[in-house]
Amino acid sequence: MSISLLVSAVLRYGDFFGGTLMGSRWSTKDTVSHLMDQARQGVAWLKERSSAPHLAVIIVGDDPASHVYVRRKVEACSELGVKSTRIDLPEDVTESEMLDEVKRLNQDDDVDGILVQLPLPSQVSANAVIEAIDPDKDVDGFHPVNVGRLALGQAGLFPCTPVGVMALMKQSLPELKGKHAVVIGRSAIVGKPMAHLLLHAHCSVTIIHSRTPNPQSICQLADIVVVAVGRPGLVDGSWLKPGAVVVDVGINEIKDKELARRLFGEDSKKYARFMRSGRALVGDVDYRSALGVAAWVTPVPGGVGRLTIAQLMLNCVTAAKRRLS
Amino acid sequence: MSISLLVSAVLRYGDFFGGTLMGSRWSTKDTVSHLMDQARQGVAWLKERSSAPHLAVIIVGDDPASHVYVRRKVEACSELGVKSTRIDLPEDVTESEMLDEVKRLNQDDDVDGILVQLPLPSQVSANAVIEAIDPDKDVDGFHPVNVGRLALGQAGLFPCTPVGVMALMKQSLPELKGKHAVVIGRSAIVGKPMAHLLLHAHCSVTIIHSRTPNPQSICQLADIVVVAVGRPGLVDGSWLKPGAVVVDVGINEIKDKELARRLFGEDSKKYARFMRSGRALVGDVDYRSALGVAAWVTPVPGGVGRLTIAQLMLNCVTAAKRRLS
Repeated sequence: MSISLLVSAVLRYGDFFGGTLMGSRWSTKDTVSHLMDQARQGVAWLKERSSAPHLAVIIVGDDPASHVYVRRKVEACSELGVKSTRIDLPEDVTESEMLDEVKRLNQDDDVDGILVQLPLPSQVSANAVIEAIDPDKDVDGFHPVNVGRLALGQAGLFPCTPVGVMALMKQSLPELKGKHAVVIGRSAIVGKPMAHLLLHAHCSVTIIHSRTPNPQSICQLADIVVVAVGRPGLVDGSWLKPGAVVVDVGINEIKDKELARRLFGEDSKKYARFMRSGRALVGDVDYRSALGVAAWVTPVPGGVGRLTIAQLMLNCVTAAKRRLS
Repeated sequence: MSISLLVSAVLRYGDFFGGTLMGSRWSTKDTVSHLMDQARQGVAWLKERSSAPHLAVIIVGDDPASHVYVRRKVEACSELGVKSTRIDLPEDVTESEMLDEVKRLNQDDDVDGILVQLPLPSQVSANAVIEAIDPDKDVDGFHPVNVGRLALGQAGLFPCTPVGVMALMKQSLPELKGKHAVVIGRSAIVGKPMAHLLLHAHCSVTIIHSRTPNPQSICQLADIVVVAVGRPGLVDGSWLKPGAVVVDVGINEIKDKELARRLFGEDSKKYARFMRSGRALVGDVDYRSALGVAAWVTPVPGGVGRLTIAQLMLNCVTAAKRRLS
């Protein structure tokens, strides 16, 4: 190996992984197991002292994606022995009916966690509903008090996706301190809390978004990239610094054949499957292209989604423990 | 002018100021007047409908800097006809005594704003005291609910320094959208809220701090720099992209002759004054050096400090208006 190749290899993978020369799938499986184990232990601890945690999930209307998400959350509860109550409200529910429901759950001493599946129909203000939730039962971490506590570095309940992603990073990466993290997307659910968590871990943090004129060149500075914008295949290899690690939070259904061909490659099984079903789920990262430059990329589906559910279970345990003490 | 000089001049000042070729003092005077006028109008409006806003300031012990700050705040109140009550507590006050005082002010219907001058003595938890303040009277914007509302882009009371700095930027700069802002320092009082406000204004935002290994090279990317770290003269011209605008939030007392010589220049009036008094107030920016590269730099003293006080007056008006409605 020539000196220049050696130097470029070291530069390329120097940040995190001395030697690895192939980009690879960043599996979230171990972290998911770890979080689920922690949650399981928490449930056992709580059962010994009082009772299993109890999560109440409110779902409004018939949105198929919402129903899938809620079903997965409820399934995770059963798997761990977390008690769950599902409350289905009709699409035409009024805001005051929803607020009454939330108040009832706040007052119900048996309920530890309250989750309102978003989005809500237009006649209901999501902010009003979220603010009505007792912050100590707010297992989604969306209440302003919890948002504030996260920014302030205090204890609280925090959004499941970014906290789960943090757990993945802490488990996989040798060192976060001093790394430059670029967060793409500034949502209240992922982008902003992710930025705070990375700051707490002593990363330098850049947030870019739809109004950033040169997202690609800023993203190229990143040791760590977290993408959460909902634009299929946005981030390809040309956005990445060699050796970067990439977390893909996006989950998008695509139906466009050209896009599928570009993302999957014409000879792939995924493309064949797409051609049969006419649709596929993809992230915000052009996975194949990114793997040519990045060290690790989380897959979609089967990556961050599982982390989110596992972290939700842990949030239920945390809420129950805090209420007990 | 040769082509290359022309190109470099355009590159240098292209971002904000087509033509200017000399870095200059970024005066906050006009914005301070503007904020004070707004506050004055608010006070008049409130007096017509009920009464002038009423700010209660709690100060503990004898810290000279705290006393200076409180005096300035109280003076600004008198200037605008805002009622102010100053509550002096002894250095050995207990946390529960402070909490009682805050509760009393929360319940006092005549009080619109409560400000607890920081720092507090070690036996009192600042977090506990801040959380005890009614968020609707929290004119410093430090309560977790207000911190959360800022992050969420909702209405609330927000920290005076970053909000005042935003007013300066909005008044002075033709366009913020799409600019790259670098915030140096990640405090709850300046750095983090500043980042959120810049994000709301559609900037790309990077936060760097003491653990950032290469602050200088990241800072060089910035169109807008906000420094709030408390390190005299940290940011010099070598940190800056030509034509950047720089807000210096730091205020440091220096007594070191070598540092004073470097920052002021041996032949300057400031240095002569330093040699007489043995001390001087300087910001986090090496002002002389920065002016050689930046388009605008706010001065210290006499820059951001005045913005903070003016914005506090406006926060008092906002709190009183919201309580009235």
